[in-house]
Amino acid sequence: MTDPTDTMPTAAMLVIGDEILSGRTRDANMHHLAGALTEAGITLSEVRIVSDDHDAIVAAVRALSDKWDTVFTSGGIGPTHDDITADAIGAAFGVTVDVRDDARALLQAHYDRQGSDLNAARLRMARIPDGATLIENPVSIAPGFTLGNVHVMAGVPKVFQAMVASVLPTLTGGVPLTSTSTRIDKGEGDIAGPLGDLAAQFPDLSMGSYPFQKDGKFGANIVIRGQDPDRVATATAQLETLFP
Amino acid sequence: MTDPTDTMPTAAMLVIGDEILSGRTRDANMHHLAGALTEAGITLSEVRIVSDDHDAIVAAVRALSDKWDTVFTSGGIGPTHDDITADAIGAAFGVTVDVRDDARALLQAHYDRQGSDLNAARLRMARIPDGATLIENPVSIAPGFTLGNVHVMAGVPKVFQAMVASVLPTLTGGVPLTSTSTRIDKGEGDIAGPLGDLAAQFPDLSMGSYPFQKDGKFGANIVIRGQDPDRVATATAQLETLFP
Repeated sequence: MTDPTDTMPTAAMLVIGDEILSGRTRDANMHHLAGALTEAGITLSEVRIVSDDHDAIVAAVRALSDKWDTVFTSGGIGPTHDDITADAIGAAFGVTVDVRDDARALLQAHYDRQGSDLNAARLRMARIPDGATLIENPVSIAPGFTLGNVHVMAGVPKVFQAMVASVLPTLTGGVPLTSTSTRIDKGEGDIAGPLGDLAAQFPDLSMGSYPFQKDGKFGANIVIRGQDPDRVATATAQLETLFP
Repeated sequence: MTDPTDTMPTAAMLVIGDEILSGRTRDANMHHLAGALTEAGITLSEVRIVSDDHDAIVAAVRALSDKWDTVFTSGGIGPTHDDITADAIGAAFGVTVDVRDDARALLQAHYDRQGSDLNAARLRMARIPDGATLIENPVSIAPGFTLGNVHVMAGVPKVFQAMVASVLPTLTGGVPLTSTSTRIDKGEGDIAGPLGDLAAQFPDLSMGSYPFQKDGKFGANIVIRGQDPDRVATATAQLETLFP
């Protein structure tokens, strides 16, 4: 399939979490990031979900970091024994991980305000791989961090979203895509021939067909995407002529 | 983290779909499969989501098929030009892909009943890699297929779910896990120390901490999982004693 996103910056996401893989929790962060990146003109090219396993995280971070411009991770940076992301990121980049003064100071001030104790467990959240820069967490203070092209963020959706909002403006986006969605109340088998011909006429656009079944009838939403709004409009008008 | 699922059969899922990566659609199939596998005593170990790109699909199928006992794919087996999964699976296994008589007969009978034409586009759905067995599709007839340890299924959720239901009984599951979820209304920083000690006492169980924030208060759900229901019950009782 033709891909007008070939010239856009690419990103990948790594979701770290047994709770997603066991079906206990339905992931919300990927869907949020996908929408935010599309708006910013960055293509989300691949997502991987792995369990809370050191070697699995290290291997996935290395593979995604080598392959795509930017990587976002979610999950595993809290204070409990199953929060092992910081160490895995350090291992992936071959750097040490230790409590860092600026991260400790953020946490100390936060727990002082709360009248809570910065105990050993909470101090784990100040363990940052060597050379990383911190990502602000306006929700619950414990920071994320960026190392190389990898942005390491919390799994709690409110915190994840706040971290995405602070990281995205630092990235260079491409020309955002324009897209149209046209509902056609015919089965894909009747749409496919003319749609394939139309797609061949517009090699600079992507045309995706997303079938649905509703009240026993078949139909499809045809999504046309491209960087030139005029071309997208022309192709959409031709589609509407083909299926009045 | 200790993993009681190490002795269980493993599975991976490959979601094929630009519409998920662009944020247009929120995936539902992964969450469904995760729950169904957990019930069947099979560990979902990894999920990847890739775009409608031949090389990306081939590489992901090979990697997942080599690494895990069973692989499920969703998406890309319809009649339109962007449905390229069958060819990619054929390429991943080094076999040819062509219209097969039994699949064609299923489609012919279906469209005859509907009074529709089995045109060239619809006939694409009878293209099956050499050596595969068909997966029944009671919803919209066009079959999925199994090749090696890879089960290739439709992306439309109703069809995906029907195909999962027909494939799952053919797989050998392990002893299903028992799990408990205990809500603790304290911040993870106060839970982490005692929870870590408890986890160390029960190396045969997994204990996950899933923090939440509600009405400005912090808490966490502690999920304890294992194959021996008595051990899970004992550990859960101790957890409740630690955080009354």
